[in-house]
Amino acid sequence: MGEFELIATYFKRDVKRAALGVGDDCALLAPAPGMQLAVSSDMLVEGRHFLATVAPERLGHKALAVNLSDLAACGAKPLAFTLALALPRADAAFLEGFSRGLFALADAHGCELVGGDTTQGPLNICITVFGEVLPGQALLRSGARAGDELYVSGTLGDARLALEVFRGTVSLAGDAFDAVLCAMEQPQPRIALGLALRGVASSAIDVSDGLAGDLSHILQRSGVGATLDVDKLPRSEVLRAQPLALQRLCTLAGGDDYELLFSAAPSRAAQVRAAAARAGVPVTRIGRIDAEASLRLHDAQGRAVSNQFDSFDHFRS
Amino acid sequence: MGEFELIATYFKRDVKRAALGVGDDCALLAPAPGMQLAVSSDMLVEGRHFLATVAPERLGHKALAVNLSDLAACGAKPLAFTLALALPRADAAFLEGFSRGLFALADAHGCELVGGDTTQGPLNICITVFGEVLPGQALLRSGARAGDELYVSGTLGDARLALEVFRGTVSLAGDAFDAVLCAMEQPQPRIALGLALRGVASSAIDVSDGLAGDLSHILQRSGVGATLDVDKLPRSEVLRAQPLALQRLCTLAGGDDYELLFSAAPSRAAQVRAAAARAGVPVTRIGRIDAEASLRLHDAQGRAVSNQFDSFDHFRS
Repeated sequence: MGEFELIATYFKRDVKRAALGVGDDCALLAPAPGMQLAVSSDMLVEGRHFLATVAPERLGHKALAVNLSDLAACGAKPLAFTLALALPRADAAFLEGFSRGLFALADAHGCELVGGDTTQGPLNICITVFGEVLPGQALLRSGARAGDELYVSGTLGDARLALEVFRGTVSLAGDAFDAVLCAMEQPQPRIALGLALRGVASSAIDVSDGLAGDLSHILQRSGVGATLDVDKLPRSEVLRAQPLALQRLCTLAGGDDYELLFSAAPSRAAQVRAAAARAGVPVTRIGRIDAEASLRLHDAQGRAVSNQFDSFDHFRS
Repeated sequence: MGEFELIATYFKRDVKRAALGVGDDCALLAPAPGMQLAVSSDMLVEGRHFLATVAPERLGHKALAVNLSDLAACGAKPLAFTLALALPRADAAFLEGFSRGLFALADAHGCELVGGDTTQGPLNICITVFGEVLPGQALLRSGARAGDELYVSGTLGDARLALEVFRGTVSLAGDAFDAVLCAMEQPQPRIALGLALRGVASSAIDVSDGLAGDLSHILQRSGVGATLDVDKLPRSEVLRAQPLALQRLCTLAGGDDYELLFSAAPSRAAQVRAAAARAGVPVTRIGRIDAEASLRLHDAQGRAVSNQFDSFDHFRS
């Protein structure tokens, strides 16, 4: 199978909204009048962002999901994406599964593939997503204010728990392992929640490198600090069955969660609950924004917990 | 050096036109009212798109140049780009040179870096570029009509000749080697020519996989054929000093040329010359579009030349 046959077989589909899709030098997008275009790129490398054991269908899902998660954190509506793919060889079984998982998630969010590139090389997946948002409505990292409440969607830490199973530091089997594996391999981008939080949240970020690290980006960009109750961090029953130190590591510094972390003024609390209900995603209040810089952690009894939870760093980890 | 320090040191610059640049979950582009957005992604892998010996500054240039070349082929005006970069390690000397070459070309074309991703992994560079074009003005592969004349910009084949030197099949030294090495490592995207050809050319493509193969894309998408005079293909003095068979291989199937191949009605010949003069880029008429399908090659004496010049294919080469 050659390069152009590969594209035609697995990746060329008619576009509905874009003015021109796959097959020319450029794709052509026709932005709706007055809309801003939200753009994000994420690159996935084997061994860093996924394990060699992952099913191709789940990898196709995840590659797009981590990009859609950036649109969600911005409150943008997905429109289109490009896919650049380096493959060791044109493997039909891989491509069939990968494209199936990719397009299932793309279709679920009305996000169409408009272009890209394929080349021979070490497996590498680079997706750039495009979404639309009204000027002034994008959720940014810079809008948190002292007194705001801090929230996170879904549960945290299961993806990291799955990684620890692969590393051999934790034993899990059966349904418990399937559940955390699914969290790691098939994250659900919180698009509906991001859209519902426009005009409600004062700041937002998606949790990809671990809650403590990603929160620090909000704090730095907003010029504020925060206090978190580490016992309030939402976690699955599977994670709750693990030792407390592991629970804290996974929820605070896990990475690969793809939940939304956001702040909102206390007066918006009812609107936050309504947005969560509308999106069908649980949201938990986990702390508050302070005027005093840096992040303070405490437990349910109010005792200080030391913050040794660094963000994942691709060049330090 | 960590991931965030790396981005802040080498890749974070203020944006002038975008509504939001590097540093949040998404960049925000504010398209001019009524404009279409031209989008293209290209991924560069060591050993496929560049050699390990390339100077980082030239690599930074080339990574953006091959993407800008797609905008040129579309007649789009460059606006912005994202950069996703996998690096084996955070090497300051590499990053300093790479970013310098990248931004020198970006600044020359008013194209600003708005976002991206960095990760640890085998060296891989994925850029997505954005340009703007008025609806209906984009140059497409599908517009060639029987009777149109075929043109190509600049000269062809020097990049391939340089590759043959590295492969040891050709000996070159001194200025001759420097010239073909520069063609391979520092292609100049024909942005000004692409803009000048809007409303003049009937179809266009950039020559990245070899003239014969890239022309076949125009022929297929336009439902036409073509006749080329292989002795008219523009080539450098260095290439002209090589055996005729090698000249033909390099010009017809070289790859990495990043010149514009385009068609225009005979009535547009004066406008083509004016566009070339305005852009300051030589343009050569090399053949014509036929109603009869497929590509016919002949030499200056009108003798048929067999077309054994396949396009470069990443999964066959």
